[in-house]
Amino acid sequence: MSFPYLARFQDAVAELKREGRYRVFADLLRRKGAFPTATYYGGDKPRDITIWCSNDYLGMGQHPKVLAAMHEALDTCGAGAGGTRNISGTTHYHIQLEQELADLHGKEAALTFTSGYVSNDATLSTLSKLLPNAVLISDQLNHNSMIEGIRHGGAEKKIFRHNDVEHLEEILKSIAPERPKVIAFEGVYSMDGDFGPTEKICDLADKYGGFTYIDEVHAVGMYGPRGAGIAARDGTMDRIDIVEGTLAKAYGVQGGYITASAAIIDAIRSYAPGFIFSTSLAPVLCAGAIASIRHLKESNAEREKQQAAAGRLKAMLKGAGLPVIDTPSHIVPVMVGDPVCCKAVSDTLMRDYGIYVQPINYPTVPRGKERLRFTPGPLHTPAMMDTLVGALSDLWKHHELPQQSVA
Amino acid sequence: MSFPYLARFQDAVAELKREGRYRVFADLLRRKGAFPTATYYGGDKPRDITIWCSNDYLGMGQHPKVLAAMHEALDTCGAGAGGTRNISGTTHYHIQLEQELADLHGKEAALTFTSGYVSNDATLSTLSKLLPNAVLISDQLNHNSMIEGIRHGGAEKKIFRHNDVEHLEEILKSIAPERPKVIAFEGVYSMDGDFGPTEKICDLADKYGGFTYIDEVHAVGMYGPRGAGIAARDGTMDRIDIVEGTLAKAYGVQGGYITASAAIIDAIRSYAPGFIFSTSLAPVLCAGAIASIRHLKESNAEREKQQAAAGRLKAMLKGAGLPVIDTPSHIVPVMVGDPVCCKAVSDTLMRDYGIYVQPINYPTVPRGKERLRFTPGPLHTPAMMDTLVGALSDLWKHHELPQQSVA
Repeated sequence: MSFPYLARFQDAVAELKREGRYRVFADLLRRKGAFPTATYYGGDKPRDITIWCSNDYLGMGQHPKVLAAMHEALDTCGAGAGGTRNISGTTHYHIQLEQELADLHGKEAALTFTSGYVSNDATLSTLSKLLPNAVLISDQLNHNSMIEGIRHGGAEKKIFRHNDVEHLEEILKSIAPERPKVIAFEGVYSMDGDFGPTEKICDLADKYGGFTYIDEVHAVGMYGPRGAGIAARDGTMDRIDIVEGTLAKAYGVQGGYITASAAIIDAIRSYAPGFIFSTSLAPVLCAGAIASIRHLKESNAEREKQQAAAGRLKAMLKGAGLPVIDTPSHIVPVMVGDPVCCKAVSDTLMRDYGIYVQPINYPTVPRGKERLRFTPGPLHTPAMMDTLVGALSDLWKHHELPQQSVA
Repeated sequence: MSFPYLARFQDAVAELKREGRYRVFADLLRRKGAFPTATYYGGDKPRDITIWCSNDYLGMGQHPKVLAAMHEALDTCGAGAGGTRNISGTTHYHIQLEQELADLHGKEAALTFTSGYVSNDATLSTLSKLLPNAVLISDQLNHNSMIEGIRHGGAEKKIFRHNDVEHLEEILKSIAPERPKVIAFEGVYSMDGDFGPTEKICDLADKYGGFTYIDEVHAVGMYGPRGAGIAARDGTMDRIDIVEGTLAKAYGVQGGYITASAAIIDAIRSYAPGFIFSTSLAPVLCAGAIASIRHLKESNAEREKQQAAAGRLKAMLKGAGLPVIDTPSHIVPVMVGDPVCCKAVSDTLMRDYGIYVQPINYPTVPRGKERLRFTPGPLHTPAMMDTLVGALSDLWKHHELPQQSVA
């Protein structure tokens, strides 16, 4: 008579398997000094593979300065922070990291979170609550963490078509002038690899009294002077109210953050439950992030090599007639359009070619938009690219996949 | 005409200041090998203080085995994981850590999250969505992360009076037998320091077809054989459906987890957005956590010394006529009952005595229940306790605070 819990969980998983989008984690160990190669533990015995889908875009996760800072932090103060930010968990490393981040974005203050996901979720939900009768206006392709943060806040929500500023203006125009209007969008959209139109959005925010929130997680470290992101590149960073970023992608470590005026940061840190009630970032991570940010403020070499690698790979894929999306960014998506086939290609690449690229299926992208998403970095060699493009060409023939390039 | 954003954020903060519950973070640096002392950077110049409110209950954050494992992981695979669990962010350390955790709790599988907060939020909200027409039944004093997780799930919610199993039974009885009923509670309640009645709750779950979810974040590493928590101590661990824990308190590192049957873990990892879309724990944290868990599976010394320290401090506080709550656990709360006074005592302890204990005010505890919460550990010496109790006695007289002990 009671509810059949076990059967329900099994059914939920069986449903994913039926749809061909059940996820199997690839058990990997990257080797310091040998990125992007790694040991893969998923087969009969461990073997070497090349990772083509890491978000450690610049290989900073193995940078000597980053690792030296982390070793030193472990020796200085130990492992974890030991508490929430308010209860013994604020360390001198957190303060320094937040100063570094505020400086990066030219803002008065910054606040760190345990992840970029949490920074979006906690900040957007808290904004919704702090701003009475607010409307949250969200780009259609915003990341799940922004969608969930907006949903959790419970304020009214409106979605504008991806990067469509005319649609955004229609929405802004339709809302009473005195209501708070938060416009949430991204600097780089990670699955299509296109940029958010920061200048036009800031113009509209000025015109209609909007508050601007940009997610720069795929852009920080990668674009703009000192790696401050797309808004920095566009010269609009001082017109954005809150810049959100991550320490876990180009910076190669872990954690998320926001930067803004001191008043905004003080309000968010005082009211956001997802910030208040969580143990703070381990100081060892803060130390690594500080070193990484400082390095990428001064060095353009990693960014330049990364852009060169992305350009080369896109050209090679196009040359081979493979359906690469011609993105303006560092992200190189190749369309498949079917979840089962996408997974089959990925499995064969790993098994037969030692190439690791994860199939990107629903819900990360819409159904029918399944793809392989390559993130070439400064450490991917031309020889690795030859191997990759050759393997894809073989598999495209084998699976009779469409071969035109995608605009 | 447009909304005055800045003024609104300033007002929100001013409101906290008026209520005496504005939080100022203590800028600290613990020193490896010298816990629980630390350097405090908040005054005119850095100075040494003793931390009395860390959740690194056993000092494992400076344990040589933990730090050695972390150094080794940095040298082996670098800093961050480089991706979500599904997109290149599953490392061999994650797999090993999850095996270690499943073994700790005698479950088939485990799943790690970037924090305990996220593990509660993501798991409870996903359970609500996976179980059709579910009722989430929550202890009144459950942690904010459980409350938010339940709220985010959107299922019907019922609250039972803290540890009141008769009230819980009334609620269970009132719900149709065929509906899923998730009972969410804690092993150790961190602010009052009492235990959840695991056996009685499991009996009721059996009787009424309930699903049991226990938060053991303040108990793992601390209680039960091998440090597996209160349910392990009570012999009820195999009757609990999901055990949630943290790597950031007694284990001294960072991160959260759940353990359960393989079917449950597979469903949560496949459906929880807060898990799917977040960069995985840095391998260096996994390595530290593995070492810490393994050590505390075998060693009782830290637990025994911690219990002895807690017993001694409680006796000393009672002897001095201070209003300590006589908890059965390792947590030692001393009641103040007023937010302004609570903060004043805490400020004076830091300034004049080099003693750091955070005032615990609303919303962490209900208004009127403001307190100082001490967490004596194996490394707090009798001399440190003498200093602490002497200082509190002085301040209790100075502020004319009530002096009776609290049941």
